[in-house]
Amino acid sequence: MKNALEYHNISYEKIVLKRGRIYVKTRNAHETASNLAQVFGISSASPAIGTTSDMNLIVETAIKLADATVEKESSFAVRCHRVGEHPYSSMDICKEVGKQILTSLKDRNLRVDLGNPQFTINIEVRDKESYMFSETKHGVGGFPLGSQSKVVCLLSGGIDSAVACWFTMKRGCPVVPIYFDNSPFIDETTATKALDVAKKLFELSIGFPRKVYVVPHGKNLETFIKESPRKLTCILCKRMMYRAAENIAEIEKAEGIVTGEAIGEQASQTLINLRVLNDAVEKYPVHRPLLGFDKTETEALARKIGTFEISTRKAKGCTAAPAKPSTRAKLENVKKAEEKFDIQRMVEKSVRAAKIVTV
Amino acid sequence: MKNALEYHNISYEKIVLKRGRIYVKTRNAHETASNLAQVFGISSASPAIGTTSDMNLIVETAIKLADATVEKESSFAVRCHRVGEHPYSSMDICKEVGKQILTSLKDRNLRVDLGNPQFTINIEVRDKESYMFSETKHGVGGFPLGSQSKVVCLLSGGIDSAVACWFTMKRGCPVVPIYFDNSPFIDETTATKALDVAKKLFELSIGFPRKVYVVPHGKNLETFIKESPRKLTCILCKRMMYRAAENIAEIEKAEGIVTGEAIGEQASQTLINLRVLNDAVEKYPVHRPLLGFDKTETEALARKIGTFEISTRKAKGCTAAPAKPSTRAKLENVKKAEEKFDIQRMVEKSVRAAKIVTV
Repeated sequence: MKNALEYHNISYEKIVLKRGRIYVKTRNAHETASNLAQVFGISSASPAIGTTSDMNLIVETAIKLADATVEKESSFAVRCHRVGEHPYSSMDICKEVGKQILTSLKDRNLRVDLGNPQFTINIEVRDKESYMFSETKHGVGGFPLGSQSKVVCLLSGGIDSAVACWFTMKRGCPVVPIYFDNSPFIDETTATKALDVAKKLFELSIGFPRKVYVVPHGKNLETFIKESPRKLTCILCKRMMYRAAENIAEIEKAEGIVTGEAIGEQASQTLINLRVLNDAVEKYPVHRPLLGFDKTETEALARKIGTFEISTRKAKGCTAAPAKPSTRAKLENVKKAEEKFDIQRMVEKSVRAAKIVTV
Repeated sequence: MKNALEYHNISYEKIVLKRGRIYVKTRNAHETASNLAQVFGISSASPAIGTTSDMNLIVETAIKLADATVEKESSFAVRCHRVGEHPYSSMDICKEVGKQILTSLKDRNLRVDLGNPQFTINIEVRDKESYMFSETKHGVGGFPLGSQSKVVCLLSGGIDSAVACWFTMKRGCPVVPIYFDNSPFIDETTATKALDVAKKLFELSIGFPRKVYVVPHGKNLETFIKESPRKLTCILCKRMMYRAAENIAEIEKAEGIVTGEAIGEQASQTLINLRVLNDAVEKYPVHRPLLGFDKTETEALARKIGTFEISTRKAKGCTAAPAKPSTRAKLENVKKAEEKFDIQRMVEKSVRAAKIVTV
């Protein structure tokens, strides 16, 4: 939270943790709430006005809040939540505040509706303090970034891998994106897309490293195209990516590999092929947060996260992909195809040649 | 689709596949559409009225549809999509139908609003036929069940595993649920819950087998509690489940193991522990569709699927779980703890003792 506020140049006096709530004292409550709603682990943020627990002050402040928010000819409700010892009950507060709002804002022609009000004045009295708010911003949820272990994430620049990466960030994992550079089978636009997607995602992990591994992968692809069955190209390509990711996970002391695969989304992502892909990785789990997602669902999330526009920029597709990729690869055939090569050496060479880019 | 209609006792004349649309000829269009919207692979279903491509008949039928659906004092639009050769354009149809509806339903005081209408009369003209509909039911999406390979699914009766199971079904995988019976550490309610959840899920896989493996697991747990560090109980328990699932996957010729784990959701589900769990499985990928989900998000889906009510029935929690389970288990310690036992034999014994229940 501190990092996010600093990054967005929002000044605040202090942050206090009290009884399951976090209070940020600031003169920019709305801007603060909007920004903090984007911080992983926060389920909601409400711009609030604070005062003491004195009934008169509560009423006075609540009227100010209502004056600033409740529109003409509309309905409202007052809700109160109270913790501690006070000379009044929650009900007393609701009644008194409601009555005084009706009187003070008489010319707005308001009415009380406790069932389905258009505006709600929420009052929380906690011991000697009280807080009032009428708006609650829905937060991103999940866990605070860094509360889980690090993961490496295959990031292609496309829609899916960005969303998969975001999902693990949301659940608390700092991410190290890995981009595999398939030039000359793709154009340069793709690399830029991937780095821009990473930049966008890193806006949500303020205070964490912003590095991306860029791994040269074109030579490997060239070798596979020349010397192995054409329909296996994508499987062989992806198994190499997994292995390189495993090496980088070790270097980075990460605990898992994240990919954007969804069951059946592409030829290489049939359930049978996912099993063949998994076989290439020994020491790390492959985490696929999008397994059950339809493309339209993933796209909707990408729009919300802000990566959709970047991921859908025009770029040449990978020309190494065969016209008829295998959808039911047999592990023994894949292994046989790989026997021709010194796979271990190829992986190590790629990882050694990787560039670490800070975006 | 045929199975679903038969199961729900809905009579229909025929099902025709034409140019990316599937037409079901029936007298129960609404009921048919509602039921088919629940079939995996269907993205939407519209109860429609059909006629020929004759302009007069189209107008006449569209008026009937409008009469039955468009409410008094409301706005409407006519949209037309045309494929084939006709003596009129789509625009002609829209104009004529719109005009005639306004005339015929004059006493309803309707108005045309092309931007944001309250009701829409959709007309599809395809060669010699035409179809009209005003309502589109949102379908479940995904792929037709059986278009992907079979998976086995750890099903506890709880909220998460049911939703995980549903996600793989949605993407086309027939599922074989496996329930591990931890008695005497749980009560009988839990087994009933798991079987009821399976029954609920099987309502969505009409025509596929409805069997559940019930694997006795209490003896294994007892052994672990007695003879290994208490804080590892849950990890050891789950590794055994994975291994048994692997055996059953082989028996069932499945291609993967599905679990309801989400990163950090429980002590056993930290990223570090998931890695330790994965280590127990050699031949199959562990698929976790809920990896990135918050509990509230999973619950919302469970409500939609219809398993929430079953999963939240009161039951005694597993009393084998230690007060302080390890959240950062070390693989070497886990392996050392397992060395004491003939793990392979324990797994085989459990699987051999498994009961296959048809629900």
